[in-house]
Amino acid sequence: MSTGESLRAAVDSWSRFLGEANVRTDGETLARYSRTTQDSAPRPACVVFPESTGQVQEVVRIAGRYGVVVYPISRGRNWGYGDACAPTPGAAILDLSRMNQILEVNTELAYAVIQPGVSQGQLYAYLAEHQTGLWMDSTGAGPESSLVGNTLDRGFGHTRYGDHFETCCGMEVVLADGRVLETGFGHFANAKAGRVYRYGVGPFLDGLFCQSNFGIVTKIGLWLMPQPEDFCFFFCTVKDDAGLERLIDALRPFRLRRMLDSAIHIGNDLRVLSSRIHYPWESAGEAGALSERFRQQLRQMHGIDEWSVGGAITGTRGHVRDMRRLLRRTLRPLGKLIFVDDAKLALGERVARVIERFGMTTLSEQLASLRPVYAQMKGAPADESVHGTQWRLRHPPDHASDPRDPLETGCGLMWFSPVVPMTGRDARRVLNLVRPVLAEYDFDLLATFTLLNERSMIGILNVAFDKSVPDEVARAMACYDAAMKTLIDDGYVPYRTGLRGMDKIRDGDDVFWQVAREIKQTLDPGDIISRGRYVPPLKGPGASGA
Amino acid sequence: MSTGESLRAAVDSWSRFLGEANVRTDGETLARYSRTTQDSAPRPACVVFPESTGQVQEVVRIAGRYGVVVYPISRGRNWGYGDACAPTPGAAILDLSRMNQILEVNTELAYAVIQPGVSQGQLYAYLAEHQTGLWMDSTGAGPESSLVGNTLDRGFGHTRYGDHFETCCGMEVVLADGRVLETGFGHFANAKAGRVYRYGVGPFLDGLFCQSNFGIVTKIGLWLMPQPEDFCFFFCTVKDDAGLERLIDALRPFRLRRMLDSAIHIGNDLRVLSSRIHYPWESAGEAGALSERFRQQLRQMHGIDEWSVGGAITGTRGHVRDMRRLLRRTLRPLGKLIFVDDAKLALGERVARVIERFGMTTLSEQLASLRPVYAQMKGAPADESVHGTQWRLRHPPDHASDPRDPLETGCGLMWFSPVVPMTGRDARRVLNLVRPVLAEYDFDLLATFTLLNERSMIGILNVAFDKSVPDEVARAMACYDAAMKTLIDDGYVPYRTGLRGMDKIRDGDDVFWQVAREIKQTLDPGDIISRGRYVPPLKGPGASGA
Repeated sequence: MSTGESLRAAVDSWSRFLGEANVRTDGETLARYSRTTQDSAPRPACVVFPESTGQVQEVVRIAGRYGVVVYPISRGRNWGYGDACAPTPGAAILDLSRMNQILEVNTELAYAVIQPGVSQGQLYAYLAEHQTGLWMDSTGAGPESSLVGNTLDRGFGHTRYGDHFETCCGMEVVLADGRVLETGFGHFANAKAGRVYRYGVGPFLDGLFCQSNFGIVTKIGLWLMPQPEDFCFFFCTVKDDAGLERLIDALRPFRLRRMLDSAIHIGNDLRVLSSRIHYPWESAGEAGALSERFRQQLRQMHGIDEWSVGGAITGTRGHVRDMRRLLRRTLRPLGKLIFVDDAKLALGERVARVIERFGMTTLSEQLASLRPVYAQMKGAPADESVHGTQWRLRHPPDHASDPRDPLETGCGLMWFSPVVPMTGRDARRVLNLVRPVLAEYDFDLLATFTLLNERSMIGILNVAFDKSVPDEVARAMACYDAAMKTLIDDGYVPYRTGLRGMDKIRDGDDVFWQVAREIKQTLDPGDIISRGRYVPPLKGPGASGA
Repeated sequence: MSTGESLRAAVDSWSRFLGEANVRTDGETLARYSRTTQDSAPRPACVVFPESTGQVQEVVRIAGRYGVVVYPISRGRNWGYGDACAPTPGAAILDLSRMNQILEVNTELAYAVIQPGVSQGQLYAYLAEHQTGLWMDSTGAGPESSLVGNTLDRGFGHTRYGDHFETCCGMEVVLADGRVLETGFGHFANAKAGRVYRYGVGPFLDGLFCQSNFGIVTKIGLWLMPQPEDFCFFFCTVKDDAGLERLIDALRPFRLRRMLDSAIHIGNDLRVLSSRIHYPWESAGEAGALSERFRQQLRQMHGIDEWSVGGAITGTRGHVRDMRRLLRRTLRPLGKLIFVDDAKLALGERVARVIERFGMTTLSEQLASLRPVYAQMKGAPADESVHGTQWRLRHPPDHASDPRDPLETGCGLMWFSPVVPMTGRDARRVLNLVRPVLAEYDFDLLATFTLLNERSMIGILNVAFDKSVPDEVARAMACYDAAMKTLIDDGYVPYRTGLRGMDKIRDGDDVFWQVAREIKQTLDPGDIISRGRYVPPLKGPGASGA
């Protein structure tokens, strides 16, 4: 059979099995699933919507029979990292958003069991509505994005449970031949500890199914965080660029000792500004990256500093009290420090409403930008940082009512996110590597460093661009390629990557990628599932891992 | 070539390559490496002592050429779980104890890089001597046992870093064909974050190399714990058996909230006694399990209760103060509670010395048994619990000077260690399942529950027996088999197992074990490395996973 015939045969089989409404090949759907924040992405051949594990099994069996690549997505909000798009053209997108059941919430042992289609907003609402006293952890991608999808790409959020893969306990995985694998203790009849202990007995296989293409995860256990006894948000800003090193080195001992155990986010001026305003095209013009003088004016106008750090103190009252004291002693010499807790936030909002009547809105504005950040530290999904992706748009949507989905607004966005040892030296080195590259291509550096675990940070850097300006798109692609190469060559390898970055992390014919490919060959010899995703393709371009 | 010829050819090659002194085939050595706390274990064909990764590579290449199974051990102290013995007879034991270098200690980011031969005592001494301010975590297996070996079997200790696999960051693995795999970021040139971030980019492969036989780990990064600001040990005993449920349910909220973040150990009367005395053969006779009345007398005589729990509070001073208050409120109604910190311990010892002069030794005795437990909560290796393995010996060595190695003293010992959700109900159910089985075979139940992570406990239960009494050995084997089956059938699956347990955890032709075997087939088609260890053998008995 020709490729076209195979595809038609697969579509026929899927349609018979799932019903025609759940197998789409119309141009509008295909266009919708080709949208990307990159310059462009491969166009799929069809989109398939299974609603159960059993259906996923049959869908991959059919795919295998006809040699059609399937690309599972949870809810397709992998913005800036490939969106809902497959690495190869002509794939069948397996949209799992109909598998959106919260299968179990256990309040005694603090976990949930969920399907890939469950959104951050959905679980958050469930936990609140049922007064579980449990927090989830959410990323900055907003309420509509998937928890499972992010976990499998090893994404992160803001609370003590910010490292999502670390909180995943037991997976159900459909393999390429249709078998269902249960990891951890899940494959034992009557298993009692399947959702409370990750490893099971024998090899711990879960790591195989994140950032890879060895199977389709259709269910996971997800640990939830019991509300802490006490909670306090801290926010500190430093005026000079060099304050960054001092901030990181001051925070490291606390993070290393778990005295601060939430993820801590440090952002630069433009990153903070980008969630409030857009690139000032009228005043700055097309001159490329903003001048330092201009940035200074912007900072002044919006009352922000060069670097801002926000994090949470959680724990016993005594701990929160002690940590406030310790942070005061450590951070006050570096910049402005404020603490916010529930009582203070409520008071602030009452005061702001009064002041507003007198025409003063700065406090309201600051509170408005603080509230979602504060809520995120308690696991609430917010999409303020998604707004930042609009930074370079010449014609952004109206700020108040804008859709946050970057694919709706023509945002160009490419993340490059190196893992950085938690030292000021390393952060500085990364900035020194990246800034000249961005400047060369006329882009500003929007930077965040997240102190994710106890020893490392993830630098969230990006190229944000306007997809309606062809020259800017071309510069953005060249800039991304150059920045990735510079960072990886220097040993600051990204924690995650998008479609355009996949081949950049495959360092030649390295034993690591050889082994990954050998496992792929074993579990999916037809290279049916997500061909080219992280693991090099078995055949064709890139197969040698180049 | 016959099996004998192949073996001789391999031994010749190894001898030429490593020198004859490093390839032993003499009877004394083989007997030494066949010693076991089981009834018996397969006898190896030879013992090989490589001293570098390069040598390990060549050793497996030679093994592959001649089809000889190699069984790597780190320091061979896997007591009660298979000791230094391979699952199959005629293997070449690969003793890695010469690879005993501490390759790096980074005090800024709190980690070490070590080889398999590094012992607990060695790293502990290094960290103390160099005044690093860093703690390691140690198991109860004493100073001579290996850190890497325990980590790869997913063992655990006592501090906040008690889950050893969780603190392992980046592995160097020799594969069956001699290639060297570096996991995490280790395979990138100049990688900066290889020891501070576990996952790298792409699939996270480390889980493949614990409790398996897919490769030989020759180096790991190991996270170390910075000394906390404040430390306090708590110890609580409850008089009645039913207190166990209340203890667990009282501690769960604190553990779940990480307000107590060290491993917490709850032991029964006999477990506590076994580290001080031996089974009272003279008074109890050969009647089998001790009567409840007799146990009561023992408890009274030694001043202990039915259940004892010990753990540490670590963190800020305010946190430790708050937690003492909270534990007082929660645990005092259940039993006797004491707190011990450095100051109190020093005072106690001064007082004890004074009291001793008046002939009263109870306090001294209690302090003597407390001190190692206290030190273990700070990462110091102690072998008090190893002493417990002598419980059933008719002719134990002299207590003061006894060798702690159970293989030196003829101890019989089989652990069965189910993972148990952290509820009183589950702990009780496990006891109710296991007690009748032990009683049937005339053994006492020595039990510990360790609150290891935030949601589960590991039950450390065992059959301890005297290897010099054939009938007892036979009963012990039957008892172990019955207890394992009872627990697994009920869904309380062990976190780890020894040689005799390997086939009991392979639940038929389950997809999990199929996948494990397929990966083995890919990475080690000759089934050369540790054949039969966790992963079912590719051919021969047990190959179908039965």
